[in-house]
Amino acid sequence: MTDPRFFSPQGPFALAELAEIAGAVLANNADAKRRIVDIAPLDAAGADEVSFLDNRRYLDAFATSKAGACVVAPEFADRAAPGMALLLADAPYRAYARIVRAFHPAPPLEPGVSAAATVDESATLGAGCRVEAGAVIDARAEIGARCHIGANAVIGAGVVLGEDCVVGACASVSHALIGARVAIYPGARIGQEGFGFAPGAEGHLRIPHTGRVIIGDDVEIGANATVDRGSGPDTVIGAGSMIDNLVQIAHNVQLGKGCILAAQVGVSGSTRLGNFVVCAGQVGLAGHLRIGDGATLAAQAGLMRDVPPGAVYGGTPAVPATTWKRQTIALMRLVERKGKK
Amino acid sequence: MTDPRFFSPQGPFALAELAEIAGAVLANNADAKRRIVDIAPLDAAGADEVSFLDNRRYLDAFATSKAGACVVAPEFADRAAPGMALLLADAPYRAYARIVRAFHPAPPLEPGVSAAATVDESATLGAGCRVEAGAVIDARAEIGARCHIGANAVIGAGVVLGEDCVVGACASVSHALIGARVAIYPGARIGQEGFGFAPGAEGHLRIPHTGRVIIGDDVEIGANATVDRGSGPDTVIGAGSMIDNLVQIAHNVQLGKGCILAAQVGVSGSTRLGNFVVCAGQVGLAGHLRIGDGATLAAQAGLMRDVPPGAVYGGTPAVPATTWKRQTIALMRLVERKGKK
Amino acid sequence: MTDPRFFSPQGPFALAELAEIAGAVLANNADAKRRIVDIAPLDAAGADEVSFLDNRRYLDAFATSKAGACVVAPEFADRAAPGMALLLADAPYRAYARIVRAFHPAPPLEPGVSAAATVDESATLGAGCRVEAGAVIDARAEIGARCHIGANAVIGAGVVLGEDCVVGACASVSHALIGARVAIYPGARIGQEGFGFAPGAEGHLRIPHTGRVIIGDDVEIGANATVDRGSGPDTVIGAGSMIDNLVQIAHNVQLGKGCILAAQVGVSGSTRLGNFVVCAGQVGLAGHLRIGDGATLAAQAGLMRDVPPGAVYGGTPAVPATTWKRQTIALMRLVERKGKK
Repeated sequence: MTDPRFFSPQGPFALAELAEIAGAVLANNADAKRRIVDIAPLDAAGADEVSFLDNRRYLDAFATSKAGACVVAPEFADRAAPGMALLLADAPYRAYARIVRAFHPAPPLEPGVSAAATVDESATLGAGCRVEAGAVIDARAEIGARCHIGANAVIGAGVVLGEDCVVGACASVSHALIGARVAIYPGARIGQEGFGFAPGAEGHLRIPHTGRVIIGDDVEIGANATVDRGSGPDTVIGAGSMIDNLVQIAHNVQLGKGCILAAQVGVSGSTRLGNFVVCAGQVGLAGHLRIGDGATLAAQAGLMRDVPPGAVYGGTPAVPATTWKRQTIALMRLVERKGKK
Repeated sequence: MTDPRFFSPQGPFALAELAEIAGAVLANNADAKRRIVDIAPLDAAGADEVSFLDNRRYLDAFATSKAGACVVAPEFADRAAPGMALLLADAPYRAYARIVRAFHPAPPLEPGVSAAATVDESATLGAGCRVEAGAVIDARAEIGARCHIGANAVIGAGVVLGEDCVVGACASVSHALIGARVAIYPGARIGQEGFGFAPGAEGHLRIPHTGRVIIGDDVEIGANATVDRGSGPDTVIGAGSMIDNLVQIAHNVQLGKGCILAAQVGVSGSTRLGNFVVCAGQVGLAGHLRIGDGATLAAQAGLMRDVPPGAVYGGTPAVPATTWKRQTIALMRLVERKGKK
Repeated sequence: MTDPRFFSPQGPFALAELAEIAGAVLANNADAKRRIVDIAPLDAAGADEVSFLDNRRYLDAFATSKAGACVVAPEFADRAAPGMALLLADAPYRAYARIVRAFHPAPPLEPGVSAAATVDESATLGAGCRVEAGAVIDARAEIGARCHIGANAVIGAGVVLGEDCVVGACASVSHALIGARVAIYPGARIGQEGFGFAPGAEGHLRIPHTGRVIIGDDVEIGANATVDRGSGPDTVIGAGSMIDNLVQIAHNVQLGKGCILAAQVGVSGSTRLGNFVVCAGQVGLAGHLRIGDGATLAAQAGLMRDVPPGAVYGGTPAVPATTWKRQTIALMRLVERKGKK
């Protein structure tokens, strides 16, 4: 059961309803009318809760779980705990996501501006916005309908936010044009000047940055992540891209649609990622690179050259993943041979 | 001497008192009644100050220091500057820590809630709390006795803080149950949703996170570090764990007791660390791993597999440290041979 | 054209004026009186705008740009688009920087303290300061003339800021003495305690930190970067050093003058960098190292030993860059040979 201090599940839902929500097939002699009250992890779920299996590592938990129902791929159906209703889906994680969203939709936003917020009189707020205590919204900012501006967040002058955006506590946004349904997590920094200066022994000469940050619809920017504005060109985050905590996006970077950047990735200035590029944790990319559509970069990879579309790269300096794996094995064998001497 | 703008040392203490506080033995013909007024580094200390030596790199500074007294291991006693009183201890850094804590205990907390703070009427504050200007404490939060909530910090709805916690300036906490004597440094982000969604070309589908962050007693979370709440299971930080700045702890991660994570470490989702695991700076751990009790991971290591208890691992992909060292040497020799051709 | 929501260019300037500002030579049959109204990137600039070329990657854009004028090195002059006025300079990026600063100087600061700021009565503000809404300035802080304290920023007790400093939104500063013209970006954390404790199975024993952070003139500290105060010695950032986003500077670290640390670099405790050291992105340095003047550390390098002045190092563990390159090639050849078997 989810903690009532923090969560208030909708429902209950009958198994048949959940199957429809999930696009799943009810199996294992399940009672379609059985009522499910909440979601829960496999090892904690009870008879009136639904869970999921999406990783072979947890097959044992699946086999011993007391969950009343479970979303699972058909191939694992026969490993289920006795009596567990099954919701069979080819993409079980996605199916389960739909169920979680049914039980736990975003809480309704109670509109209003806290008396402890500071909103410049020239800023505009769309209908149904909520602005929490300590938030500061500067001159001429345009906040779309139903946006939620968190406590102590700061929205700079002229910033545009689309509808249904969430700006987390203590985040700051400046020099940015942002689409709809964008989530900016607590402490994220959007729109400050990039790391741009003309170096020299007589003193590094700062270059004022006159570009912006342009963020498409449905983007997420993680906690304490940083997205610098462009130096002249814009910094662009394509629609649907997911950026995790503590990621650095430098000035003039362009991300295509649906990119996924895990925690602590760093993208240097003017590098461009195509659509649906995946960067695992702590990947670093040098400046001015081109990473093709659908490329995947393994954790901690250090990219110093362009990557073609669809390629998988790893290592530092990064090479195709197959090469990286062979290098790793070759190095291991080299040591083994030396060990035998 | 410490800077009076920022510090007000207690004392003075006689050398005999310091020896007792530190659990050290006074040596080198020291006058037990000699009064010491403050602590100082070896190269800055004067005749009425105490310093310490814990690293051979600083033996020269130890030999020429003007410190009136010094905490040191017995083996280095004969390298002391002439006339320096010695406080001999087998664990000199720990002994010195006790002395520093005597001179510089946490300043007394002046209870009260700033008129510029925003505390929801349904939140509860224990006796002796101090809430600084701009802090926001949301509905039903329970703040234990003698907590110090920093300026512009944000405590979310329903959060529970044990006694004697410190929440730094501009930090934010939500969806969390926190023990006693926990220190959350400025800008740390606790409890936001993790990086969880069902990816797909038709759009990545965000999964609402219904777990919490559970933090044990005596934990420290560094500046601008991020600890995401669980997706269903909880994210758990065991008692006494020390987490440095800019560390990323993903959803569902579990840390045992007394773990030490240096700056910029990243722990991916659902990975579990045992007790007293040490991660040096910039280590990255993939998801769903198990790291055994007492394991040590060298700086920048990239963990892709489980690690047994007590093991020392390094490199990317990480291997036992002895193997990593031999790989490094083998690679160096390979280049040397090629160089000779 | 720069976005009028965010920028208001000065000017226009005649080409002759720009040449003088930039220290450049006007060429390509340019009309010295031609008026230029703003800056713009090569691919977006129009006939009344000036751009620059500083990277061979963009020679094609240079050859097809519609920019009215362009700052460029003499060697590329003959690659210019037809009709483009040229401003020839041996250091074109620096020359262009001067032009951008002419069009886009820092906006004039409108002095005043927001009614929604909290300034302790014992703090002092120099002439011409601006303090934004939600900022908190604690007891005895001394803020120099013309400082700009951003929204929801926090300046701790006793902190000293020189003239013309900028503290970004949501940044926090404590236990610090800061020079003139220092820029602290949004969310940066300056002066909190470092990661210092005596570890032990009976509990890690925190050591109070009694040092400070000393920051020289003209330093920049990036967004969400962290600079811990010293444990007894100070943490020192030399004049003119440029520190990018998400960088970690541990307790007792010393940086010389003019150092450049790119994003996500981590410097461990007590390590000292000389003057004009360059660390590329995600570099990690172990504790207690000495890095000589003018050394360069390649991206993701892991430094475990001292580095002599002027050296270039790369890899983990870091070695001279020439060695690292040969290691990389040797490893690649090892795999190629194996592949042929």
